[in-house]
Amino acid sequence: MKKYVYQFKEVEKADKNLFGGKGANLAEMTKLGMPVPQGFIVTTEACTQYYKDGRKINDEIMAQISKKLAELEKITGKKFGDVKNPLLVSVRSGARVSMPGMMDTILNLGLNDQVVEGLATLTNNPRFAYDSYRRFIQMFSDVVMQQEKSKYERILDEVKAKKGVQFDKDLSAEDLKEIVAMFKKLYLKGQGEEFPQDPKVQLIEAVKAVFRSWDNERANVYRRMHDIPYEWGTAVNVQSMVFGNMGDDCGTGVAFSRNPATGENEFYGEYLMNAQGEDVVAGIRTPLPIATLKKQNPAVYKQFVDIAKTLEKHNKDMQDMEFTIEKGKLYMLQTRNGKRTAKAALKIAVDLVKEGLLTEQEALMMIDPKQLDALLHPQFEDKALKAATPIAEALPASPGAACGKIVFTAERAKELAANKEKVVLVRLETSPEDIEGMMASQGVLTARGGMTSHAAVVARGMGTACVAGCSALKFAQDEKSFELNGKIYKEGDLLSFDGSTGKIYDGLIATEPAKISGEFATIMKWADKYRALQIRTNADNPKDAENAFNFGAEGIGLCRTEHMFFEADRIPAVREMIVSSTVEERKRALAKLLPMQKKDFIGLYTAMRGKPVTIRFLDPPLHEFVPHEDSEIRALAKEMGLTFERLKRTVEDLHEFNPMMGHRGLRLAVTYPEIAEMQTRAVIEAAIQVSKEKKYKIVPEIMIPLTCDVREFKYVRDIVANVADQVIAENKVKMTYKIGTMIEIPRAAVTADQIASYAEFFSFGTNDLTQMTYGFSRDDAGKFLDAYYSKKIFESDPFARLDQIGVGRLIKMAVELGKSTRPDIKLGICGEHGGDPSSIEFCHKTGLTYVSCSPYRVPIARLAAAQANIKFPRN
Amino acid sequence: MKKYVYQFKEVEKADKNLFGGKGANLAEMTKLGMPVPQGFIVTTEACTQYYKDGRKINDEIMAQISKKLAELEKITGKKFGDVKNPLLVSVRSGARVSMPGMMDTILNLGLNDQVVEGLATLTNNPRFAYDSYRRFIQMFSDVVMQQEKSKYERILDEVKAKKGVQFDKDLSAEDLKEIVAMFKKLYLKGQGEEFPQDPKVQLIEAVKAVFRSWDNERANVYRRMHDIPYEWGTAVNVQSMVFGNMGDDCGTGVAFSRNPATGENEFYGEYLMNAQGEDVVAGIRTPLPIATLKKQNPAVYKQFVDIAKTLEKHNKDMQDMEFTIEKGKLYMLQTRNGKRTAKAALKIAVDLVKEGLLTEQEALMMIDPKQLDALLHPQFEDKALKAATPIAEALPASPGAACGKIVFTAERAKELAANKEKVVLVRLETSPEDIEGMMASQGVLTARGGMTSHAAVVARGMGTACVAGCSALKFAQDEKSFELNGKIYKEGDLLSFDGSTGKIYDGLIATEPAKISGEFATIMKWADKYRALQIRTNADNPKDAENAFNFGAEGIGLCRTEHMFFEADRIPAVREMIVSSTVEERKRALAKLLPMQKKDFIGLYTAMRGKPVTIRFLDPPLHEFVPHEDSEIRALAKEMGLTFERLKRTVEDLHEFNPMMGHRGLRLAVTYPEIAEMQTRAVIEAAIQVSKEKKYKIVPEIMIPLTCDVREFKYVRDIVANVADQVIAENKVKMTYKIGTMIEIPRAAVTADQIASYAEFFSFGTNDLTQMTYGFSRDDAGKFLDAYYSKKIFESDPFARLDQIGVGRLIKMAVELGKSTRPDIKLGICGEHGGDPSSIEFCHKTGLTYVSCSPYRVPIARLAAAQANIKFPRN
Repeated sequence: MKKYVYQFKEVEKADKNLFGGKGANLAEMTKLGMPVPQGFIVTTEACTQYYKDGRKINDEIMAQISKKLAELEKITGKKFGDVKNPLLVSVRSGARVSMPGMMDTILNLGLNDQVVEGLATLTNNPRFAYDSYRRFIQMFSDVVMQQEKSKYERILDEVKAKKGVQFDKDLSAEDLKEIVAMFKKLYLKGQGEEFPQDPKVQLIEAVKAVFRSWDNERANVYRRMHDIPYEWGTAVNVQSMVFGNMGDDCGTGVAFSRNPATGENEFYGEYLMNAQGEDVVAGIRTPLPIATLKKQNPAVYKQFVDIAKTLEKHNKDMQDMEFTIEKGKLYMLQTRNGKRTAKAALKIAVDLVKEGLLTEQEALMMIDPKQLDALLHPQFEDKALKAATPIAEALPASPGAACGKIVFTAERAKELAANKEKVVLVRLETSPEDIEGMMASQGVLTARGGMTSHAAVVARGMGTACVAGCSALKFAQDEKSFELNGKIYKEGDLLSFDGSTGKIYDGLIATEPAKISGEFATIMKWADKYRALQIRTNADNPKDAENAFNFGAEGIGLCRTEHMFFEADRIPAVREMIVSSTVEERKRALAKLLPMQKKDFIGLYTAMRGKPVTIRFLDPPLHEFVPHEDSEIRALAKEMGLTFERLKRTVEDLHEFNPMMGHRGLRLAVTYPEIAEMQTRAVIEAAIQVSKEKKYKIVPEIMIPLTCDVREFKYVRDIVANVADQVIAENKVKMTYKIGTMIEIPRAAVTADQIASYAEFFSFGTNDLTQMTYGFSRDDAGKFLDAYYSKKIFESDPFARLDQIGVGRLIKMAVELGKSTRPDIKLGICGEHGGDPSSIEFCHKTGLTYVSCSPYRVPIARLAAAQANIKFPRN
Repeated sequence: MKKYVYQFKEVEKADKNLFGGKGANLAEMTKLGMPVPQGFIVTTEACTQYYKDGRKINDEIMAQISKKLAELEKITGKKFGDVKNPLLVSVRSGARVSMPGMMDTILNLGLNDQVVEGLATLTNNPRFAYDSYRRFIQMFSDVVMQQEKSKYERILDEVKAKKGVQFDKDLSAEDLKEIVAMFKKLYLKGQGEEFPQDPKVQLIEAVKAVFRSWDNERANVYRRMHDIPYEWGTAVNVQSMVFGNMGDDCGTGVAFSRNPATGENEFYGEYLMNAQGEDVVAGIRTPLPIATLKKQNPAVYKQFVDIAKTLEKHNKDMQDMEFTIEKGKLYMLQTRNGKRTAKAALKIAVDLVKEGLLTEQEALMMIDPKQLDALLHPQFEDKALKAATPIAEALPASPGAACGKIVFTAERAKELAANKEKVVLVRLETSPEDIEGMMASQGVLTARGGMTSHAAVVARGMGTACVAGCSALKFAQDEKSFELNGKIYKEGDLLSFDGSTGKIYDGLIATEPAKISGEFATIMKWADKYRALQIRTNADNPKDAENAFNFGAEGIGLCRTEHMFFEADRIPAVREMIVSSTVEERKRALAKLLPMQKKDFIGLYTAMRGKPVTIRFLDPPLHEFVPHEDSEIRALAKEMGLTFERLKRTVEDLHEFNPMMGHRGLRLAVTYPEIAEMQTRAVIEAAIQVSKEKKYKIVPEIMIPLTCDVREFKYVRDIVANVADQVIAENKVKMTYKIGTMIEIPRAAVTADQIASYAEFFSFGTNDLTQMTYGFSRDDAGKFLDAYYSKKIFESDPFARLDQIGVGRLIKMAVELGKSTRPDIKLGICGEHGGDPSSIEFCHKTGLTYVSCSPYRVPIARLAAAQANIKFPRN
């Protein structure tokens, strides 16, 4: 018989896959002899079994829960449903990795109309007893029964108003009793049956609710964002309750063994006296800093600090702990490796190496490469910042400079961001429903809540700037405007704030690119030491190239020449080329483009200081360069001195049913070789000039896009090689060059052995390769992919995270076939996947030479490449 | 040193790959002691070397040609350029397989201003000598120098007019001398230099011209049509001349050992006295039937018949021979396996087996499956034919019923055919430039030329109906109308004719499907005996299914249900479904479609009499079912009782950038499961009803299109299985069914092992698979594929002939992966490649269970499958 339920003290090996992170850590703390309220864990296997059984808890698991509950009664000396000495429990989710705010928690379970009376007598504190009961009913109806939370809140507000009190804590036991009665009536109305009085029924319903919550919308979105497989499931922790709300010698809070915002080695945290855990996390009351506890109760403070240090050493990482003080006694409710800002992550990793707790490799492995993104975003320009006066200051909850148009709802944030507008989300407080809106924003500003509030925790996880708890910010009744520093701000008004300092500014403040220094530089140095993959960048202009060079790029893996074609001074010549009806006309137009392209390439070669530069030839279909509306065509025709009909006909001739699969890429070079000829001349002449002037040894790399066939590639390659040789001969210099191809069409992958006989390098264009391999276009897939996510068909976006099963099989095949013909072939990737850590790991394992990504992703890629080589060392 | 040039008598093994068909057969006839004018062969390897050397004949090959020429002088006792006893030669191309009309021939080479005089003296026939010389100059300037033919023709016409004669043969020696002088002047003007007088220069230029002609436009088109690789190259045959135009005891002609139109075992052919070969083939003069020779020269006739029988036995096939009679002596200029009509091919194959010359397998191998197409096209309905009176009768040159609009040029034929119009091409005579126009026509009618004229030979090869040599047809001067039987016919007028009888009819005559009987039935019986592949058909309606059943289809491999959706009585319900904004609305619309779909399926099951029927669920994007022009949208909105804006919005929402890669296939079933549910119910209810009524044991096969992922397939499969099980339970019957998928997306192929864990069968949709694998859409590729053909990048259309290298690799991979998970998986193909013989051979070798093709291709596929299994027997 499989064991599905374990007492904390029964756990021998704290396996997170089986017990979830929370459960494993509770078991571990129990083993270390720390003050942990005892309880048991329903395993993740029970969760997957629940889904296998069609969302039912089967008899076997039911029986095991009952048995463990009976044991827990013995351990605590309390009894479930016993009026004299009742056992109350919390029920919490606990997945393998922490999913903050995603999963639901129920406290005070075990209370009913009788037990609440017993609890009142036992504690001699009827107010506490009824407060606990009303909280329980409220959470149960919300979390377990999905009733509308606000209806319960409204009752609470109404009673407070009637009684003329401001805070919950000012309500009397009688008031709370009245509220409980009203809550129960509301529950009956909503549910069609009485609030369950049998604690065992309450428990089973709560366990089911946790299992169910694994599959709620928010959890699914979070998982997709963080690449967490649906199959993992969640464990459930059933823990005997201790109370932080039993009186003024009680309290509860959250603490970190180091500062999660800066990484400083200082004990850090917040707590509230006479409160339950949710009060702290929800950010409704502003909590006290943990240092205050040192004065209030030095013994407990010292005990806590010792526990924190022990846990940090034991887990070799900074700890995030939840605790409760009941009647002056400390209880540890949870510990886990703490979330932290990117800055803190770097500092902690470097410090732990200095302290001798970690090796360099271990330190590299503990940083999430994606998190570095936060450090690579622009910061406010020093000068602009000095000139600006803050209009307010609040908690620096998640670092980074944010500026943009104010929005008040997550929906609006998503809408505007979809139109490429920069927005900042301003809220009273955030809730899990806001996650997607937070993702879409430059930053989040809240009026309420502390450093551990929902907004702060989630923003830090995302690398989004956040300033929290700005009490100076007064929302209007309708929450559609606010007053700050005497000014009314409405949707669309401009605001800036700095998540590193907590300062808020009116209007927009200029930003500048990030720099790599301090611990960041140390980590990057270590990463370079341990990685095997080279990191290049995708850059089409000297500015991006310069940026990437400063971020450590070892070359350009993709320069898209069409980006140059779109610029205002070139597009007339491009259009002239397009409307040409003879080769001669086309050549005349191209001759105008030649000096401009050459200048572009000179800029790139100069910026990259002799490092390799791969230049991809014209790729998009020509219709992208002409207007499509009659009015625009008419205007352009006039400008070009053509008749409207003539230009209209050209535009119509360029129309394609499926432009992605149309006349583009090297197909353009096959039909109009003169385009490739001009581009070749520009590349080689630029390389010769910069080689001479700067004494760099440049080996130009010319990349032919969209190859599907070896003879097709050879045809274009020969054109390029002929012109290149001619230009080199004309200039009487010696220069070698490489001609390679993108592998972005399935047929290129499966015939890579043939293509490699002429191509000197391959670069996997995984954007197009993903589209063709899946048979859907990125532009159109939006219409149905949501259904694919909600129906669990896809768990991640194949355009963001490389599909290793399908697309990956083609890449592996191409690598093997390519090497079989040309063992020393250079292999790179230049799709957007080049900056995605899991895809980088795949590229490392598949034996690529380099990955190429956007400039801002270069440091991420350096770290991810190091992690890949530490996990899977290359021979 | 490689040997590039061989005397006919030197050839030991008559290897067609090296010597070309013509050369190998000349060598063979020489060996058999037949009267062959001697000569030598420049091999195909010399041709490929010529292209390798950048279109140059290198010194080595030059030297070998000179050597063989010297030998030939010894053999013939004549000398090249010798005035007293000149050696004259013909220079002809000879590829591995015969390419009629494609390659160029030069006769009388060796003549110059001196030699012509010598020849006149030697033969005592100055008229002959100058006629030969003027022909040579004309051919040389046309074929070798690409000068305009018509300018020479015009001189000839002018001189004839001046002299008041009608035929060339009525011109005197002096006239011809004058013409030669004018020709030479014209040559000088066109070429900038004198007509070459050195016979060796003439020879080398002619050899080069043959090599060059391998790469001309027409040759490339022909090769693409017939899957002949460009790499093969052509040999050149240099043969000493004999003359059919030396006087009235001379002649030349073409003969077949059996009748190439009917297959009857009778000596058959045509000849002209006092003429050179080109006169017969070009169809300018109408030749005599070969039987006439029996009277004119019984000895030569008998000798010829004996040679024909010997050659037929030797080559085990019907022979097509060219011969010349010089001064009463017979010379064999060429023999080859004769082109024949499909009907003749079948009769000859069956007769040769009866005669003990061939085994059944050999007989099957000698029929080109594609040729059967001609027998499968509709014939005139007996009744309609009886009611019609022919307006004229001419040579039945290529069988089949043709009716359509009259066109007079190949260009116009192509234009109208592209608009799906049926056309018949009416010409004075055809030339190689007309090939594509002939392909686009239902039939070809010519005013001039015999059974071996260009039109006749090419039409038979294509399986296009042809009536030739209709001398009653009088063209107007401008060739834009003609008179026949007293009526003037213009472009667009309707005409019918029967290539099997040679009868021509005014207007359109009703046609009916072909039947399989006689030798055709025998061959099909043998094919079924030797094949391993099953043959299914693609059919969407009972009529097609019935047809295919009669042609021997063993099931339906593809029923496209969307075709049913487009029918006039259904489209309103389909549109209602599309504009639905709720599941309930959509279900209501689908409920209207259910009985219609069910009726469709009942029809198919009934027509197929219990054989398997694979039904593919809705595939195309929904926008195909709605109009796109505002005016149409407005009309439809009115009809549907919707506002214009509402319907317009729906249409706009359905717009896709790349519809081929959009919301279609099973993606529709993922977003709108109710569509798949309705279709499943229709399939299963229909199967149950027909099973009951007809006592067939039906196992419905439901095919899910466009799968790219195993979970995606499983999601839809589960929906289908649930409804199917429910319908079976409702009806209280026992029925099994299969659910499988199309493999038409690269990712499905590379993850076929996963997909096979749920899919019970695969059907390769090679149309889409080819598009996605190549990354170009069929609709758009037209714009650049011509450049790919002319630049030798592609040699055949990957949509017509399966790309075995790229797409084939994916198919092989999918077969291996699929079988690794499910060893007994059923594997089929249902793209258009299912009816293409070379693709069928690939499917056979790859281990597929069946191919599915259009009804009219079923017999072709049966034969092709037999040939594949004879060539590559399955264990």
